[in-house]
Amino acid sequence: MQAVDFTEDTLRLLDQRRLPEAEVYLDIATSEAAAAAIRDMAVRGAPAIGLAAAYAVALAAREAAAASDPARTLGACAERIAGARPTAVNLRREVERSLAALSGAPEGWYRMALERARALHEAQRAEDAAMAENALPLFRPGMRVLTHCNTGALATGGLGTALGAILAAHRRLGLEMVLVDETRPRLQGARLTAFELGRAGVSHRVIVDGAAAHFMARGLVDLVLVGADRIGRDGRVANKIGTYGVAVLAHHHRIPFAVVAPRSSCDLLWPGQREVEIEERDPREVLEIGGRRMASPGSEAYNPAFDVTPGDLVSAIVREDGLFRAPYAF
Amino acid sequence: MQAVDFTEDTLRLLDQRRLPEAEVYLDIATSEAAAAAIRDMAVRGAPAIGLAAAYAVALAAREAAAASDPARTLGACAERIAGARPTAVNLRREVERSLAALSGAPEGWYRMALERARALHEAQRAEDAAMAENALPLFRPGMRVLTHCNTGALATGGLGTALGAILAAHRRLGLEMVLVDETRPRLQGARLTAFELGRAGVSHRVIVDGAAAHFMARGLVDLVLVGADRIGRDGRVANKIGTYGVAVLAHHHRIPFAVVAPRSSCDLLWPGQREVEIEERDPREVLEIGGRRMASPGSEAYNPAFDVTPGDLVSAIVREDGLFRAPYAF
Repeated sequence: MQAVDFTEDTLRLLDQRRLPEAEVYLDIATSEAAAAAIRDMAVRGAPAIGLAAAYAVALAAREAAAASDPARTLGACAERIAGARPTAVNLRREVERSLAALSGAPEGWYRMALERARALHEAQRAEDAAMAENALPLFRPGMRVLTHCNTGALATGGLGTALGAILAAHRRLGLEMVLVDETRPRLQGARLTAFELGRAGVSHRVIVDGAAAHFMARGLVDLVLVGADRIGRDGRVANKIGTYGVAVLAHHHRIPFAVVAPRSSCDLLWPGQREVEIEERDPREVLEIGGRRMASPGSEAYNPAFDVTPGDLVSAIVREDGLFRAPYAF
Repeated sequence: MQAVDFTEDTLRLLDQRRLPEAEVYLDIATSEAAAAAIRDMAVRGAPAIGLAAAYAVALAAREAAAASDPARTLGACAERIAGARPTAVNLRREVERSLAALSGAPEGWYRMALERARALHEAQRAEDAAMAENALPLFRPGMRVLTHCNTGALATGGLGTALGAILAAHRRLGLEMVLVDETRPRLQGARLTAFELGRAGVSHRVIVDGAAAHFMARGLVDLVLVGADRIGRDGRVANKIGTYGVAVLAHHHRIPFAVVAPRSSCDLLWPGQREVEIEERDPREVLEIGGRRMASPGSEAYNPAFDVTPGDLVSAIVREDGLFRAPYAF
């Protein structure tokens, strides 16, 4: 099961909106369709989004080589890909890096972009393995771990970030239980993380997001591990809505709260002159569930996709190059 | 719209599981059906449950008078009603009080129990109005208020507790916005609180429970107001799962967190030798939404219905007899 793949000149994405009911793969032949798949969250998780974007640039390069004005076509397609989701730092960066890897005549761009995307894919596999290794000191045998959203193999080109580390720790040390925040509104915890834990045979329970505090107060959570969409110089973390609340709760209960994310999620320009844009998604994600209206007719919703956790609430940040402790200065 | 009513010798409950899509009333003629309706949450909210139970005892008294062993029949029916939900303190207490109001020949029990239930109904209306008045000092014009679960007219025999106070404050002072935690797993916020706010013309937005911390950090919440299923001597509060987390978050952001509940929710034997039982409800409430499986097949859930907030996180407790501040000693 690969979230992102590229075979026979086609980008293949596992459609994560259909999981766990159905394992459906999308075969994507154009950069426009790739941008739409990123925007509509067929692929999700910052590293997987970056990887899909790198492959999408290869599609754009192929389209550009066939166009009357290759450079302009490439630029327009690349901008559409980069703008598909605003908060993940990887997305724009991977698009820019892929563009920077192109040189010479347009006929060669596709091959160059594809090589660059494959190299990124390989690098993500190695990074994920290194992060799992570096996170190991956070774990003890028999621990009860809580996680939010999905940060497993579905979210990256490799093993995953936080969930990859949890699965690796379980294999090495044996964990007692993983509590999975269902992670409203899109339920990535209940749908995807529970799915990956089930496949790996790890004892787990889904809980509503509002129940995390209750289990912490009862002493049933020893460690919280999450991923990140963007990490700032001072260790501040933009991640799935609900992460910041879990961090505050962990702090209140003196439970370690650690973030596992690759260096590519670090944004050394943040905080800076411009605040990071928090993506406000369609209110229907809150008001409807599975296409069915749940909320009162006529009522509206706010639906921020991310929140920001200050570095002083983060006990540790694990990257492929090590385990870091506060105060952070990346 | 009345959550609980009794006309023509029949208990009439507004089926809150069907709201907001449909306004369906259940006509309930037996104490067994009444207990089932309480257990299955056709009626909810501690005061409304207590009131429904008082009317259910009237049905039980009528059944008992026609039975071969009236006292035994009454006891068995009453026990079934009292055991329908374990956490709300009102339920067992109202059943006990209704039983205590019965005397003399079994033929008179029904009338006595009905009179007692009607008196309770009238008392709840008066209590709710008094709580709304007593809560007024917590509000300022233009405030942004966050609430969890549903504590309005649907939850009591009157105006409601916390939501009744919010609506009254809005009429008197004008609130800018009410943020409504959707309140998973049963979505009472999105379904019922949003419904009541919409009917009253109050500006409101539904948010996922995990987003509350984000809005607090952004300075968009001035006050949190919730109800209670049970309040202990020292101000500890058992309420809908997720309440405790909101209390911790409010504390972290120095936002007042107030509880509005009648004296009948106070349990002066708590804390005591026996810990309050936290009702663990059907895991399908978490794993399914609207009857559709959302979580990964094979994964299980924990589904505690309530959590407990210690009194030191509660800025104020409003009852019909006044506004109380920590440290509490009821």
